[in-house]
Amino acid sequence: MVTALFAERIEYIKASEIRELLKITERPEVISFAGGLPAPELFPVQAMAELSGRLIRDEGWKALQYSTTEGFTPLREKISCRMKKVFQAHAEVDEIMITSGSQQALDFVGKVLINPGDEVFMESPSYLGAINAFRPYGPKFVEVETDAEGMIPEALNDALKRAGHPKFIYIIPDFQNPTGRTWSIRRRKALMELASKYGVLVVEDNPYGELRYEGDMLPAVKSMDTEGWVVYLGTFSKTLCPGMRIGWIAAHRQLIEKFVLVKQGADLHTSTISQMQINLYIGKEDFDGHIQTLRQVYRKRRDAITRAMERYFPEDACYNNPEGGLFTWVELPGRIDAAELLKEALNRNVAFVPGAPFFPCTPKKNTLRLNFSNMPENRIEQGIVRLADAMVSLQ
Amino acid sequence: MVTALFAERIEYIKASEIRELLKITERPEVISFAGGLPAPELFPVQAMAELSGRLIRDEGWKALQYSTTEGFTPLREKISCRMKKVFQAHAEVDEIMITSGSQQALDFVGKVLINPGDEVFMESPSYLGAINAFRPYGPKFVEVETDAEGMIPEALNDALKRAGHPKFIYIIPDFQNPTGRTWSIRRRKALMELASKYGVLVVEDNPYGELRYEGDMLPAVKSMDTEGWVVYLGTFSKTLCPGMRIGWIAAHRQLIEKFVLVKQGADLHTSTISQMQINLYIGKEDFDGHIQTLRQVYRKRRDAITRAMERYFPEDACYNNPEGGLFTWVELPGRIDAAELLKEALNRNVAFVPGAPFFPCTPKKNTLRLNFSNMPENRIEQGIVRLADAMVSLQ
Repeated sequence: MVTALFAERIEYIKASEIRELLKITERPEVISFAGGLPAPELFPVQAMAELSGRLIRDEGWKALQYSTTEGFTPLREKISCRMKKVFQAHAEVDEIMITSGSQQALDFVGKVLINPGDEVFMESPSYLGAINAFRPYGPKFVEVETDAEGMIPEALNDALKRAGHPKFIYIIPDFQNPTGRTWSIRRRKALMELASKYGVLVVEDNPYGELRYEGDMLPAVKSMDTEGWVVYLGTFSKTLCPGMRIGWIAAHRQLIEKFVLVKQGADLHTSTISQMQINLYIGKEDFDGHIQTLRQVYRKRRDAITRAMERYFPEDACYNNPEGGLFTWVELPGRIDAAELLKEALNRNVAFVPGAPFFPCTPKKNTLRLNFSNMPENRIEQGIVRLADAMVSLQ
Repeated sequence: MVTALFAERIEYIKASEIRELLKITERPEVISFAGGLPAPELFPVQAMAELSGRLIRDEGWKALQYSTTEGFTPLREKISCRMKKVFQAHAEVDEIMITSGSQQALDFVGKVLINPGDEVFMESPSYLGAINAFRPYGPKFVEVETDAEGMIPEALNDALKRAGHPKFIYIIPDFQNPTGRTWSIRRRKALMELASKYGVLVVEDNPYGELRYEGDMLPAVKSMDTEGWVVYLGTFSKTLCPGMRIGWIAAHRQLIEKFVLVKQGADLHTSTISQMQINLYIGKEDFDGHIQTLRQVYRKRRDAITRAMERYFPEDACYNNPEGGLFTWVELPGRIDAAELLKEALNRNVAFVPGAPFFPCTPKKNTLRLNFSNMPENRIEQGIVRLADAMVSLQ
């Protein structure tokens, strides 16, 4: 009865294949490389339980009440410090707005910036959640040629030169979702120069940057921004816990003003109690030590998946060994369709996400994304054995 | 540098005057009738503190993790039961999606339903947050003549007949924000008949319905809906606490499907821990008893504001005595501009919200909204004395 009543923009909104898949993979016998879930056994449960009880008892009148759209100021101060300390990126407190996870920030970026037909420049592949968040606002996605070091400056320059209404360049320079790729400093600088030259914004999405398992921490692109072109997105979903939905946008004041207006209409403000709780955790507990623990555990899991792929995958499967983050990326011979492989894999009780929907324009059907953060090493190995068996069955 | 980069829709988004005002009124010497804040001293702090600690200790692995877009199923089941028990409204669990407060539901209603130019029918005045949420999607607001019993059916019929692209009728039938007005059963039935006749949706926003201080509870318009025309919005912000941002949409499955897609792009899901905590509270604590307490306290505050207005307001000020909710509405002689009055009031350390921005099309500048839930009776009386003094100074 109501189908005829939907707005036209709804036609652009597709179900996230990842989230639909997650439902199938909830069965305990399935070994899932599908989602992007952090390891729940590493959540600082004891500390959070104590903090939470104390917070509500001592400041419940405030923690349970409405609060400002911009976010809880002490938390914004801590975020400002941490961005400086970890990524050398400068953002004043009033250049930071708290969001209900990074996903909300992506939606707001679309809402505030994209006119239908505006060019949005992306790595290819790129984060599916960003593609889905931007799409309803009617952008024209432009895939920029990218290698192991990041976007190729000449290719980006050409794309910007050709563009009619260039709006922003969306990148995940640290341990990208889905490829695990990290941009070199040289490429970060080249990108910043081009953004400034052409007057386009850079949306730097950095959910995984703190989860580095080898090599030196790199400065954020935001740290190279002297003119206010970079919109930086951060989150506590991967470093602390995703269930509270606390992320942030750091950007030029003129942009933050608009993001605040949009957030007023979208949900008034982010959960007061969750903001105060994370603020208390960072203030009172050993957040750096917690991240060290995550790095140690996830490093072992990354090593386990790489070792297992080396040992069991057919010779013509290509994969990488990311320096951090939650994902690794597999490219199979062109004749193999990862959607077909998924059927075979599910028959063997193992799941992953096919790579095709991560490509903004031209899907490569022979690719897949594997998550390694959500289970112990022995299960990872067992899963890769099953997946390799599924690959062989298609040969 | 960036102003030229904003999307066109941003021009439609205005700062909420209420929220800007709230910042001014944070000074403790100001008696504020401005916001719509529940009484923080009534939050069930002790129960929530205990539940919260226990929840994280026992189920932290789940409460702090990602969860499904639709929302936490046990909470959706309790909402389904409560809608039936309190408002005689029927909604199955899979016809309910959890939102980050009612405000998010309003934004999604706009996003899923409004094409630019579609007619949205409103009471006049209506909730400012709804007007602001819908506006960026480009609707044409149609004000429908309304009296103390609700929208006048003949006026609604005429408006629907004249409309080019009628989309939905937005109403707050119980203790409306801003007027405190409640629709009679007769008018609810008439509305439902017209919605069905013309094939337009009804968006029934019911944040205050449980807060009734006299008279019988009335069935929701949703309870009269046999064909799936009503989109019902509920929230725990007024009955429990707003700081957790937990609301819901109950609607036809075809609509819920679209709301879920939109929510995936907007913020993935609402805070897992807050959903589980409210679910635990309703399951283990005396929620009905808590609402009884709210009713008793707020009834006294409503009586206090009505008594004080009778005693101190000039004779030509009109006001009502709402049967429930958080607000009362004042109409002054036409020559008085409530924005001017606000300046005089702030000079006397008393605040309120001018009524003009609550009118979708034709503002009445001589109106104002007063909140009475957020302070004790003696402060209410003192505030009304000051406000009356400000009124007299303008005569």
